[in-house]
Amino acid sequence: MKPLRNVPENVLLPAGFSFAAITAGIKASGKPDLALVEASEGTVGAVLFTTNRVVAAPVEVGRTALRAARGRVRAVIVNSGNANCATGKPGMAGCQQVCRETAKLLDVPATEVFPSSTGIIGVPFPADKICASLSKLINARLATETAVRSFAGAIMTTDTRAKIVSSRFRVAGNEVTVLGIAKGAGMIHPQMATMLVYLFTDVRATTSDLRTALRSAADESFNCMSIDGDTSTNDTALLLASGASGATLKDGSTRKKFFAALTTVCQSLAEQIISDGEGVQHVIRLKVEQARSRKEALTVARTIAHSALVKTAWAGADPNWGRVLAAVGRSGIAVDPTRVQIFIGDQQVCRNGCAWKFDEQRAHQSLAEPACDIRVTLGRGRESIDFLTTDLTAEYVHINADYST
Amino acid sequence: MKPLRNVPENVLLPAGFSFAAITAGIKASGKPDLALVEASEGTVGAVLFTTNRVVAAPVEVGRTALRAARGRVRAVIVNSGNANCATGKPGMAGCQQVCRETAKLLDVPATEVFPSSTGIIGVPFPADKICASLSKLINARLATETAVRSFAGAIMTTDTRAKIVSSRFRVAGNEVTVLGIAKGAGMIHPQMATMLVYLFTDVRATTSDLRTALRSAADESFNCMSIDGDTSTNDTALLLASGASGATLKDGSTRKKFFAALTTVCQSLAEQIISDGEGVQHVIRLKVEQARSRKEALTVARTIAHSALVKTAWAGADPNWGRVLAAVGRSGIAVDPTRVQIFIGDQQVCRNGCAWKFDEQRAHQSLAEPACDIRVTLGRGRESIDFLTTDLTAEYVHINADYST
Repeated sequence: MKPLRNVPENVLLPAGFSFAAITAGIKASGKPDLALVEASEGTVGAVLFTTNRVVAAPVEVGRTALRAARGRVRAVIVNSGNANCATGKPGMAGCQQVCRETAKLLDVPATEVFPSSTGIIGVPFPADKICASLSKLINARLATETAVRSFAGAIMTTDTRAKIVSSRFRVAGNEVTVLGIAKGAGMIHPQMATMLVYLFTDVRATTSDLRTALRSAADESFNCMSIDGDTSTNDTALLLASGASGATLKDGSTRKKFFAALTTVCQSLAEQIISDGEGVQHVIRLKVEQARSRKEALTVARTIAHSALVKTAWAGADPNWGRVLAAVGRSGIAVDPTRVQIFIGDQQVCRNGCAWKFDEQRAHQSLAEPACDIRVTLGRGRESIDFLTTDLTAEYVHINADYST
Repeated sequence: MKPLRNVPENVLLPAGFSFAAITAGIKASGKPDLALVEASEGTVGAVLFTTNRVVAAPVEVGRTALRAARGRVRAVIVNSGNANCATGKPGMAGCQQVCRETAKLLDVPATEVFPSSTGIIGVPFPADKICASLSKLINARLATETAVRSFAGAIMTTDTRAKIVSSRFRVAGNEVTVLGIAKGAGMIHPQMATMLVYLFTDVRATTSDLRTALRSAADESFNCMSIDGDTSTNDTALLLASGASGATLKDGSTRKKFFAALTTVCQSLAEQIISDGEGVQHVIRLKVEQARSRKEALTVARTIAHSALVKTAWAGADPNWGRVLAAVGRSGIAVDPTRVQIFIGDQQVCRNGCAWKFDEQRAHQSLAEPACDIRVTLGRGRESIDFLTTDLTAEYVHINADYST
């Protein structure tokens, strides 16, 4: 389905980064499948990885390298078409080989090359094929909008659109840019829902500041969304700061504006990912209010968003508040049902846990829109959460069932 | 789909119970929708209710009544077509009115009438309509197989088959019978997956013994199954013992045989419910082994069984072990992926967390069977669990989406 809101056409480039992508022959389709970012000297980064205990080789290699390099990053090398997961020791060795070769060609330490992979799992990782393409890839790198778009295209798997957004602000005579590129949670044929997010900025920052900023922005975006509740083995969000703008996060005003810009960029990427989810017909902007804590609100939102009964009702644009109420009831929170209110679009549909007269046709129409607001108030406290989720359609089942390994 | 194993055709009746069912006009279809059990004097019961915080009126009324009557039960009154949930004070009053009227007509205390409702939620409860049919219902009661089948039919909603099973054993010259009747977790149009289970026996028992027996049998059956992970507001399992057989649970041998018979009956009902789930094409007998505790095994089994990605792969008979491994990884248990083994049918498909050569066609065929065994070993301990679950089909989505309130 279409994006929730219009994403600006133009791509703003932060200083200090160049991009490239080529076809290395990993994808059977012959589409671009190998992508590179080179970052200028002094660039530091922070990363968030999947919480899944089963992780792909690049997650382990990237985590170790970033620690060893104390956050310094000079390059990011991403392949699509092969997740390098459940590939054992050869997979680890292959990932390290690709990082070493990239580092040699760029003349940087191997620990400062950050790897990502996305695609099929359990298939041997084609390290030699990738290494054979590295020179050509590196020679293609450019600091242009076209190069950014190539990078975004080459990391796609079942995504139908590239996901890019940028934001720029002025502070004390400097211009700071934040650029975000992602691939989505459309399930990769055949196995995984992998989200890869790369965030680039030219603000000057410590790794500690970047970690705080990334965690905060992710909590307001990627951690508040769900298509099917499954967590990938490869999920990665990487934030890199070149420092080339001259502005620094040590300055309070810069810090505030940067946090806001980063959050906006992440929220736009989250929306782009959700609206491009597999078989998605309706995006639901779920708001859970009056919880005792944000964690409690998140628990309730996730229980609603992961209910097959609720999601299939949404697929049919059915204003079936009973399923939502039942999901609230089994969320593990000590909710008093007689204090629960549920709203669909602009109407209340459940009052104090009971049926409430509403215009069913209007509620149906709200749910039939590409995006619909659903609000649940718990009557327990003052915390709330905005959560992005989707319906569960027969097409999702077809996409994920009608594949045979 | 067909039942997993053949259920004996004949129904064995425990002494002390009579059954009846009629059409009271609650269901729009005009099918039977009101059912009664009368139990002889001295009958005691134990009950397990839904853990959902949102509960229907009969759950509250039944819980209170059973406590007030110290476990004594003389009648069970069940209606289908209306769940009496989210119906507020009028729903509570209506449920109490039905119990009072039933009690009056049977000349028993109102607290000894146990109510259940299943069907649509948020619709006013038709207490007057039910009360107007009670005399006719009560006059129809009989201790016959035909009456049992009528009862089982009248509590159905989207079930395609009645669910009945019985078991009999001899002990010290006495014959003890256990009869189980259930309605399934097929989603009720439009809202709920309600499981109602009624178990009848003529063994003599205290309420405390019955609670222990019911909890134990449920843990080995209903608590180890899942169609879509949603918990109803009305789920109820009631066990009644008339004592009419002369055998008593105070006797160790009777106790042992009774626990075994009750567990077998519950497991058969669980299988009948699962195989009659909405849109179910494949039942999966999931075994999680080598966990540190049964609870840990259950957590892993539930995470696998609730994964939309895993369930859609099963719908396509796709031996996609990567999705199973990823579900294990996000279950919250500190699993070491390199110790995980996965088996589909008679073959190992993942070894030490990595791809493992197997006959894909044979694995596909195993999954294409009405029931398939999948085994996951965690390499952490000695506990295991057998868990019944299903695939997630496009038909499930259609059934649950293509309804509009």
